[in-house]
Amino acid sequence: MPEKVVVIGGVAGGMSAATRLRRLSETTQITVFERGGEVSFANCGLPYHVGEVIPHRSSLVLQTPGALKNRFNIDVHVRTEVTAIDRANKTVQVREVETGKEYSAPYDALVLSPGSSPIRPPLPGVEKSYVLWNLDDMDRMIERTQTAQSAIVVGGGFIGLEVAENLAHKGMKVTLVEALPQLMPLLDPEMAWLLVERARVNDVDVHLAAKVQEVTDQGVTLEGGKALDADMVVMAVGARPNLELAKEAGLEIGAAGGIAVDDQQRSSDPAIWAVGDAAEKKRDAGAGMIPLAGLANRHGRYAADSIMGRPVRNTTAYGTSIVGFFGLAAASTGVNERVLRDQGRAMRIIHSHPIDHAGYYPDAAQMAMKIIVDPETDLILGAQVVGDDGVDKRIDVLATAMQAGLTATDLIDLELAYAPQFGSAKDPINMAGYINDNRVGGEDSAQWHEVDQLAADGWELIDVRSSFEYTRGTIPGAEFVALDSIRDNLDSLRGRKLIVFDRVGQRAHTAASILRLEGIEVKNLDGGYLTWQLGTFATTATKQEASTS
Amino acid sequence: MPEKVVVIGGVAGGMSAATRLRRLSETTQITVFERGGEVSFANCGLPYHVGEVIPHRSSLVLQTPGALKNRFNIDVHVRTEVTAIDRANKTVQVREVETGKEYSAPYDALVLSPGSSPIRPPLPGVEKSYVLWNLDDMDRMIERTQTAQSAIVVGGGFIGLEVAENLAHKGMKVTLVEALPQLMPLLDPEMAWLLVERARVNDVDVHLAAKVQEVTDQGVTLEGGKALDADMVVMAVGARPNLELAKEAGLEIGAAGGIAVDDQQRSSDPAIWAVGDAAEKKRDAGAGMIPLAGLANRHGRYAADSIMGRPVRNTTAYGTSIVGFFGLAAASTGVNERVLRDQGRAMRIIHSHPIDHAGYYPDAAQMAMKIIVDPETDLILGAQVVGDDGVDKRIDVLATAMQAGLTATDLIDLELAYAPQFGSAKDPINMAGYINDNRVGGEDSAQWHEVDQLAADGWELIDVRSSFEYTRGTIPGAEFVALDSIRDNLDSLRGRKLIVFDRVGQRAHTAASILRLEGIEVKNLDGGYLTWQLGTFATTATKQEASTS
Repeated sequence: MPEKVVVIGGVAGGMSAATRLRRLSETTQITVFERGGEVSFANCGLPYHVGEVIPHRSSLVLQTPGALKNRFNIDVHVRTEVTAIDRANKTVQVREVETGKEYSAPYDALVLSPGSSPIRPPLPGVEKSYVLWNLDDMDRMIERTQTAQSAIVVGGGFIGLEVAENLAHKGMKVTLVEALPQLMPLLDPEMAWLLVERARVNDVDVHLAAKVQEVTDQGVTLEGGKALDADMVVMAVGARPNLELAKEAGLEIGAAGGIAVDDQQRSSDPAIWAVGDAAEKKRDAGAGMIPLAGLANRHGRYAADSIMGRPVRNTTAYGTSIVGFFGLAAASTGVNERVLRDQGRAMRIIHSHPIDHAGYYPDAAQMAMKIIVDPETDLILGAQVVGDDGVDKRIDVLATAMQAGLTATDLIDLELAYAPQFGSAKDPINMAGYINDNRVGGEDSAQWHEVDQLAADGWELIDVRSSFEYTRGTIPGAEFVALDSIRDNLDSLRGRKLIVFDRVGQRAHTAASILRLEGIEVKNLDGGYLTWQLGTFATTATKQEASTS
Repeated sequence: MPEKVVVIGGVAGGMSAATRLRRLSETTQITVFERGGEVSFANCGLPYHVGEVIPHRSSLVLQTPGALKNRFNIDVHVRTEVTAIDRANKTVQVREVETGKEYSAPYDALVLSPGSSPIRPPLPGVEKSYVLWNLDDMDRMIERTQTAQSAIVVGGGFIGLEVAENLAHKGMKVTLVEALPQLMPLLDPEMAWLLVERARVNDVDVHLAAKVQEVTDQGVTLEGGKALDADMVVMAVGARPNLELAKEAGLEIGAAGGIAVDDQQRSSDPAIWAVGDAAEKKRDAGAGMIPLAGLANRHGRYAADSIMGRPVRNTTAYGTSIVGFFGLAAASTGVNERVLRDQGRAMRIIHSHPIDHAGYYPDAAQMAMKIIVDPETDLILGAQVVGDDGVDKRIDVLATAMQAGLTATDLIDLELAYAPQFGSAKDPINMAGYINDNRVGGEDSAQWHEVDQLAADGWELIDVRSSFEYTRGTIPGAEFVALDSIRDNLDSLRGRKLIVFDRVGQRAHTAASILRLEGIEVKNLDGGYLTWQLGTFATTATKQEASTS
């Protein structure tokens, strides 16, 4: 058992390791060095204090060095930086930020939890922009919002969306600028489009595929020359792991660009463990970087267990995540279609638009759900859910099913709690299983982005919705044959290659079943008109943006 | 492929079978006989229309015979009773309820989905009481509530609780009477106690362990002679499967008292399938009766698949369920402690009181969670969750984990979606896994109902909460040693057998770790003072009730 453990970084992973260590040993000397002014602060809460949703700044500070000393007998030094690791002598070089005082501290085991830092791209004027990563950043941003009336938020990921919403919540005019053709790149574009719609109905302008060239006193200038005006600019374009210490110490950096660790969270030096944003995560296909607090905490505990000689079984990381945006929740787990397509992997894709609870009970809300399945094994590879209500529940169930190795067909059999205010007798999860079972049973399908090519290949679109729905808008070129009159129109449908669709895919499944049993070649448009619309809007919007900028 | 399929019962299971059959065959003649006036009505919505939460009666009628004919080419006959099955000739004897007209209908395959009926116990005056099982019952109940000012609801299960809440919601004075010593017998008593508390703060009187002897014009008389007054009495004391037809036809009735079926939902007659409330369900320990709509739907689909010669793999039923009650949700899955104790099985029990989302984000609500684990295999045997928010999500994740065969320790590794409004970086599910891991790692624990016996055996209670908490109430006989001063009090604690507790078990875990590492014999009171209080209230209340009635 090590006598002295040093932990570098006192947020999430580092603090989980430190407190776990104490629970396993009363005699080990545990020292934590944290560069910032606080340990264990609620970094995920920062945007919500900016937006005054969380009224008190103090609620963001979860622990103090004094409390940690009293309860866990851990020595925590804040505003104290570790400047070098001497692996040969097992010491770290320490510098007190405020006094400049330097000293060295010995360790038997070292836990590296240096975290990551917000990226400030090397653009002219970038120093004028704000970031939101710690309490100091937050204080600076809040001060600026006292007088600023408008803001440009650069970056449409988690923090960009949360900052945009919260600034709008304060009454500011907000513009979102994203370099990629979509928001939230963890999602596929047709799912992410719902975020754009939600931004716009909340008076947030969104510019996609728009690259910032310069930060000015008036806002930003985009590549192509277009200027966007605002009183303040926020950079939320991602984070970079803090690898300086590890690199200078000669620790192995992995293929994904983080500190390489084994299943015990141990780095290439057997006396050094690494956790959190700077450490690589084990993924299904090689290592990856997943900067999530939940994983940091878990790995901190595992590092402590490993240091104390307890067995650790570290599992694959899936990166389940969620973001709230003006009442909408957008969540994902596992891999998305784009990543799998880039890898050239086969997949079965299931889109659905279920409601979160029984339709006859008030306030049922429709969500968009996408599940990606390995067609050979029927295992779930990833899932995405976007909607107003019940999204976190569905992604958590899907993440659990995926981690547990359930097949998509197994989703049919999950017994999920049902009362009309909480779900449906056939929960959206079960329904996805049924759709998968239909596909396994031979129902052919088409994806929204395949429609044009299929039409070119002679497939014809049949809209089986009601005439009321049809007249309000349909897919160009679609012929109208309402589901209930399919059986009366078999003669005119025979001998053709048909793509049937309805609003979400369910009535079209009945239509496809009838046609298939009659020997007619038929595909069901996966996710129906709604998914096609989302995908088409997403594609068209980006093309328009690109042509005007 | 059968030419003629007859389905008896047009709600949930029966209708799922019928529509699935059509999707598998365009040529099979499908006939549904339903004794009631409607098919596919929303029986789970009935209490909420009584309470005017669901404003329109029409939203409860999900399908009509005409629509089913048009879309699925299914012949549905409502108010039409099947009076006998002639298995030898494969015909059913049919009677139209309104005209009295009788005829026989042939079948190649028969699906029995007769459902269940509400129990009206054989008490004097029981005919004066109301039940709530179908739309006719609902109409009668609503009519009475036009003038009734007060109601006694007999039965504290799903329907009893829902009716009580909804009548109170209409402004009526409601009294709940339950023969058992607790509400919701699927829960263990300490968990169910939260429902009693919630009833009382909503001005609903609750009488536990109170048996009704007679229904009178003034209300009810309890055994022991106590009279409770009310303008109307509702009986919600459970349901009985409708087995008359199956029994008269000589089908095998299983040990659990339902129609015996195999994994294909096939009864003892190879031409007859059975689904829904009247059919037995496969459970871990033998068969059981689980009257849930989700299972009925699933088994209806499986029966159709089996009839059409498709492979079916039917899985164990766990009976996940949930009830809403004045904003509280109470959910369970798998088996409870009482059932396992009756079976003499060993178990590891984990109580926790997590909050549904990050404490620093507004409106975090505490819930009570209980997980029951097989100590040999670490598999999850059952779970219960009660609280204001996030309950349905946690029970669904636990049900999924249990069905997938995850261990309780695996819960640590589940990656659940985290943003401060949706959860915590360590979700309540992860935390339960950590608690389990602590136990597996050797932390000894005590259950709330073991405290008295342990005290008699020389174990001493140590309250490690703050002095503020301690002075507001503690477990009788407990000594106060705040967690942060445990290390200073080791000398006085050494050599004793200690049960440490805090509010929920987390600080006590730290205390127990310190003491254990010092070689002191220690147990952590599982679920802390809160669980002990709930259990003690539940036990005391029932004893008091029993002594005064």
